[in-house]
Amino acid sequence: MKAPRIKAAIIGGAGYTGGEMIRLLLNHPDVAISFVHSRSNAGNPLYAVHADLLGETEQLFTGELSSDIDVMFLCLGHGESKKFLEATEVAAHVKVIDLSQDFRLGETVSERTFVYGLPEMQRDLIKAAQNIANPGCFATGIQLGLLPLAKAGLLKEVHTTGITGSTGAGQSLQSTSHFTWRANNISTYKVLNHQHLKEIRRSLQLLQPGFNGDVNFVPVRGDYPRGIWVTSYLQSDLSLEEAVKLYKDFYAGHPFTHVSDKQIDLKQVVNTNKCLIQLEKTGDKLVIHSIEDNLLKGASGQAVQNMNLMCGLDETAGLKLKSIVF
Amino acid sequence: MKAPRIKAAIIGGAGYTGGEMIRLLLNHPDVAISFVHSRSNAGNPLYAVHADLLGETEQLFTGELSSDIDVMFLCLGHGESKKFLEATEVAAHVKVIDLSQDFRLGETVSERTFVYGLPEMQRDLIKAAQNIANPGCFATGIQLGLLPLAKAGLLKEVHTTGITGSTGAGQSLQSTSHFTWRANNISTYKVLNHQHLKEIRRSLQLLQPGFNGDVNFVPVRGDYPRGIWVTSYLQSDLSLEEAVKLYKDFYAGHPFTHVSDKQIDLKQVVNTNKCLIQLEKTGDKLVIHSIEDNLLKGASGQAVQNMNLMCGLDETAGLKLKSIVF
Amino acid sequence: MKAPRIKAAIIGGAGYTGGEMIRLLLNHPDVAISFVHSRSNAGNPLYAVHADLLGETEQLFTGELSSDIDVMFLCLGHGESKKFLEATEVAAHVKVIDLSQDFRLGETVSERTFVYGLPEMQRDLIKAAQNIANPGCFATGIQLGLLPLAKAGLLKEVHTTGITGSTGAGQSLQSTSHFTWRANNISTYKVLNHQHLKEIRRSLQLLQPGFNGDVNFVPVRGDYPRGIWVTSYLQSDLSLEEAVKLYKDFYAGHPFTHVSDKQIDLKQVVNTNKCLIQLEKTGDKLVIHSIEDNLLKGASGQAVQNMNLMCGLDETAGLKLKSIVF
Amino acid sequence: MKAPRIKAAIIGGAGYTGGEMIRLLLNHPDVAISFVHSRSNAGNPLYAVHADLLGETEQLFTGELSSDIDVMFLCLGHGESKKFLEATEVAAHVKVIDLSQDFRLGETVSERTFVYGLPEMQRDLIKAAQNIANPGCFATGIQLGLLPLAKAGLLKEVHTTGITGSTGAGQSLQSTSHFTWRANNISTYKVLNHQHLKEIRRSLQLLQPGFNGDVNFVPVRGDYPRGIWVTSYLQSDLSLEEAVKLYKDFYAGHPFTHVSDKQIDLKQVVNTNKCLIQLEKTGDKLVIHSIEDNLLKGASGQAVQNMNLMCGLDETAGLKLKSIVF
Repeated sequence: MKAPRIKAAIIGGAGYTGGEMIRLLLNHPDVAISFVHSRSNAGNPLYAVHADLLGETEQLFTGELSSDIDVMFLCLGHGESKKFLEATEVAAHVKVIDLSQDFRLGETVSERTFVYGLPEMQRDLIKAAQNIANPGCFATGIQLGLLPLAKAGLLKEVHTTGITGSTGAGQSLQSTSHFTWRANNISTYKVLNHQHLKEIRRSLQLLQPGFNGDVNFVPVRGDYPRGIWVTSYLQSDLSLEEAVKLYKDFYAGHPFTHVSDKQIDLKQVVNTNKCLIQLEKTGDKLVIHSIEDNLLKGASGQAVQNMNLMCGLDETAGLKLKSIVF
Repeated sequence: MKAPRIKAAIIGGAGYTGGEMIRLLLNHPDVAISFVHSRSNAGNPLYAVHADLLGETEQLFTGELSSDIDVMFLCLGHGESKKFLEATEVAAHVKVIDLSQDFRLGETVSERTFVYGLPEMQRDLIKAAQNIANPGCFATGIQLGLLPLAKAGLLKEVHTTGITGSTGAGQSLQSTSHFTWRANNISTYKVLNHQHLKEIRRSLQLLQPGFNGDVNFVPVRGDYPRGIWVTSYLQSDLSLEEAVKLYKDFYAGHPFTHVSDKQIDLKQVVNTNKCLIQLEKTGDKLVIHSIEDNLLKGASGQAVQNMNLMCGLDETAGLKLKSIVF
Repeated sequence: MKAPRIKAAIIGGAGYTGGEMIRLLLNHPDVAISFVHSRSNAGNPLYAVHADLLGETEQLFTGELSSDIDVMFLCLGHGESKKFLEATEVAAHVKVIDLSQDFRLGETVSERTFVYGLPEMQRDLIKAAQNIANPGCFATGIQLGLLPLAKAGLLKEVHTTGITGSTGAGQSLQSTSHFTWRANNISTYKVLNHQHLKEIRRSLQLLQPGFNGDVNFVPVRGDYPRGIWVTSYLQSDLSLEEAVKLYKDFYAGHPFTHVSDKQIDLKQVVNTNKCLIQLEKTGDKLVIHSIEDNLLKGASGQAVQNMNLMCGLDETAGLKLKSIVF
Repeated sequence: MKAPRIKAAIIGGAGYTGGEMIRLLLNHPDVAISFVHSRSNAGNPLYAVHADLLGETEQLFTGELSSDIDVMFLCLGHGESKKFLEATEVAAHVKVIDLSQDFRLGETVSERTFVYGLPEMQRDLIKAAQNIANPGCFATGIQLGLLPLAKAGLLKEVHTTGITGSTGAGQSLQSTSHFTWRANNISTYKVLNHQHLKEIRRSLQLLQPGFNGDVNFVPVRGDYPRGIWVTSYLQSDLSLEEAVKLYKDFYAGHPFTHVSDKQIDLKQVVNTNKCLIQLEKTGDKLVIHSIEDNLLKGASGQAVQNMNLMCGLDETAGLKLKSIVF
């Protein structure tokens, strides 16, 4: 007999991460979507907003909430998750996975405390958690490139470039999201000052107490919709072989993060929940490339991965995704 | 107890359609890949060629063949499938699904006769078939836009534009596949003279015997990797409502082809096995838009769909794919 | 001694065509920009809106008008040119070149009558004109592909596909101009119903009185910023050689429109004022490809070409532009 | 009376930089192209290779050389310029501008010594030079971002990310130049080890003798054809205002390099000979963004700029180019 399925709700289902949550959960073998909440779209079919879902589901957005669920995904704007949880009675048995940045630094709300949901860092804590603060997209890519060094106490000042696709900026219409402007264009923003640096530093110091070096991060707007490329480098006494061993050992047993012996390129991971890492050594500098899909491993995919862990499912359930590759 | 799985082989696994076959079958719940044949890559891991498979499988390409399989996918160049089947002893019990154009017009080889594998046209024949000629990518998109009219005997001279992504031209290095040339560029090829017109005409005449009008087809090289957009129009006495009803009735019960009441755009189907159709009526002209992913519904996805039908599996098994959408 | 320069004004200088007017006139050897009018940007430097002009000019937008000019370019939205000329006293000596569609069908305003500014069709009328209605972008590309046939009385029902870059839709923020949506995407709009069909039909009937066939036009949104690709075909008794001769004869002496003996591709003309044409014959169908930059030959470049003709300058002055090519 | 024009020859006219040389010189007011040399294309029209030149010139490639020229541009592969000058008798009066890396580090050949052709660094030396080693594309962008600091003796260890368009890799067909691979993709190469670091370091030490810090350079393959984005940062005691003043003072009088007070984006300079620079200060780090078109300011445009200086022409002659902007 088939086990009873997890009942999931998505709050804020009309945005990019909400849409990805729907896409993932529709095909998840152990989950049923109880409802997708959206104030502005209540009553409309999901495919009215997410047009690719035509033919996949007749489900409608709802403006109502229900407690007959096991897990709730909050796909709201930054600041909105906290407001929602303050204003809404969410039954105590409901697991909450929040995709905003509202609870990533240890904030609490309504007696709920949140575990930082980076499975490669703290899978056991996640398994036992009732509430998850899902990491930021850049934060995921940068941390996965640095965690093994931090764990080994080898972190020093880091120099990081991160390039993100346009989906990282959401669906709001802005001059920097206009096709005519962004096509074939490159620009930067929040140079050395990106908001994800806080959660990155928090994790790194957790693994390497006393780490006090800068993480110098140059965020770049890329000319494509999906995916994050991160290159970090730092002074290191490790040989390439030692570094590769350190990383492979660290990620052994983690099904989505892999170390490549060959040069990587971003499209290896687009439309998957994977993170690929490649190492190089030049002079006394260790170079770490790490790549992910910003909406999957960097957002909704990792949220499902966290749900799987919290609910005792296979960590990869519903996440064996076909890469776009081309 | 789990049913024994279908054992599948892929011949020519290093190309684009071969790679897509691997990606689909790796995640197919009822199929195991017995071997992936490639002369030039024998002994290498699949991920050495298809780099996105890193972390998904340790399987190697092989230069050997085996008969301990249920189904064989031929992902060879045009002309190569016929040569392969002439030169190779393939056990009689093995179902063959050929993705080339070698057998789409009724050609036979070594006592094998081939059924044209367009499920929306002849699902029952496919279910009973031992050998399938998988339709061409443009041919699939154009036919799915015209079959309901042909079935109703309403086809007249057709005017068709089709725009294809670069993956339609395969992975060989050519001046027209150079990024610097193709980015932001548009061009046409084989105007009014595309090789798929033969199989299209054959199907249309099967459904509407005596159809003798031209299918005027302008193939366009698009500035993106994946997907085919087709717009066809013809003189028609049908009202829009009548036409929509005709199409919805025709495709009722077909899980991958759907009629949209709203304007469609190509990315609704990229990285899926779906075909979406939208109709418009202007003056006395009926306009039919049809879209698909050229490598999935237009090639490897449809091949899996055919295998599912031939092997008595759910038609959608292994084909509930997450759209790239963005 | 250098001849006195033409004094030009640009009304509506903050949009795409206004920006292109500025770029062209800044480098035009015989023109000085007297003022660039923009209500919303008055007082700002031109480069505050058109950031690529940084280092080229310190000129400011103005909210004031002056009559001390020779020529005025109206780069306003459709409907706005008529309102502007109704509400504004423009001195009688000022030549007006309007880039909107307000006067392309013979409309008049304030005793000004407009000549349709397609030099390849009626250069002499343009030379003598005081007011020009600059053709639409699609209208230019489609007409240049058909004029020689119309002139020869050989036009019949035409089937046309036109693909346009995103700049054709202007700079307003819309869901269809969002980078995440438009990248790698294809869609159509106003199929068989585009507003430019009126001016196209008007010209064709001027050259071939009594022409009554349809011009079936499928407009496509392309996945790139600049350029229009047009493919038209029709039944024709001309051989390819006859057709090529007809076209080369027609365009002899026209400096921007050329017939290519080889296959063309869009980037041959991007960022130039050229139109390239290529012919093919398949069966009894003559195929005509024509390409242009929608903002130059399809808008601001053609406006300068018209100004050159009206002011007795070399037709190519200021229009020998370096192609982007890559 | 018009002054006699400079007679120029282009050696290696079939590649990207050779094509750009032709495009620039065709429109240069003071230059006539005497011949364009290409062994493999001798006898073909220039537009047979550079299809955008159709309608611009009927000139043919030649396999012959002539000494009746004033200036010779070498657009040959790295290593080929040296071979050419060793094997070829070039008359002593002919000025040579070499676009390869063969002479950028002070190498000599056949009694010719070469001046490094970065006008913003040493315009006077260039004016007096007989032979120029034209800087590399990345080298130009990175140096223009650092020269003012080096001049002021304020350079320390630098951290640099550079993103280049596909034209930087030339027109040869490679897996990394395949459209299907490169579209929507990101990758790096020669991390911390790029060959341009040598000429960069040479210039920096010339201006700041004793500078010994690393220039850590991460080169990135971008997903677009043209343009280089460079972001460098370093520890600095300068305030933002002091740094801006330093840069504006340094570049005052240089017509192509400008400091922007606003955020810049790559398309501001694509298809121009300009370099734009923008500065930011965060904590104790000074951030310098510098952008250019890799084929113009990074190659052929700068070569023309050098020719202008060497021949006593206006530095900007033939280089007032219309930006693509969109």
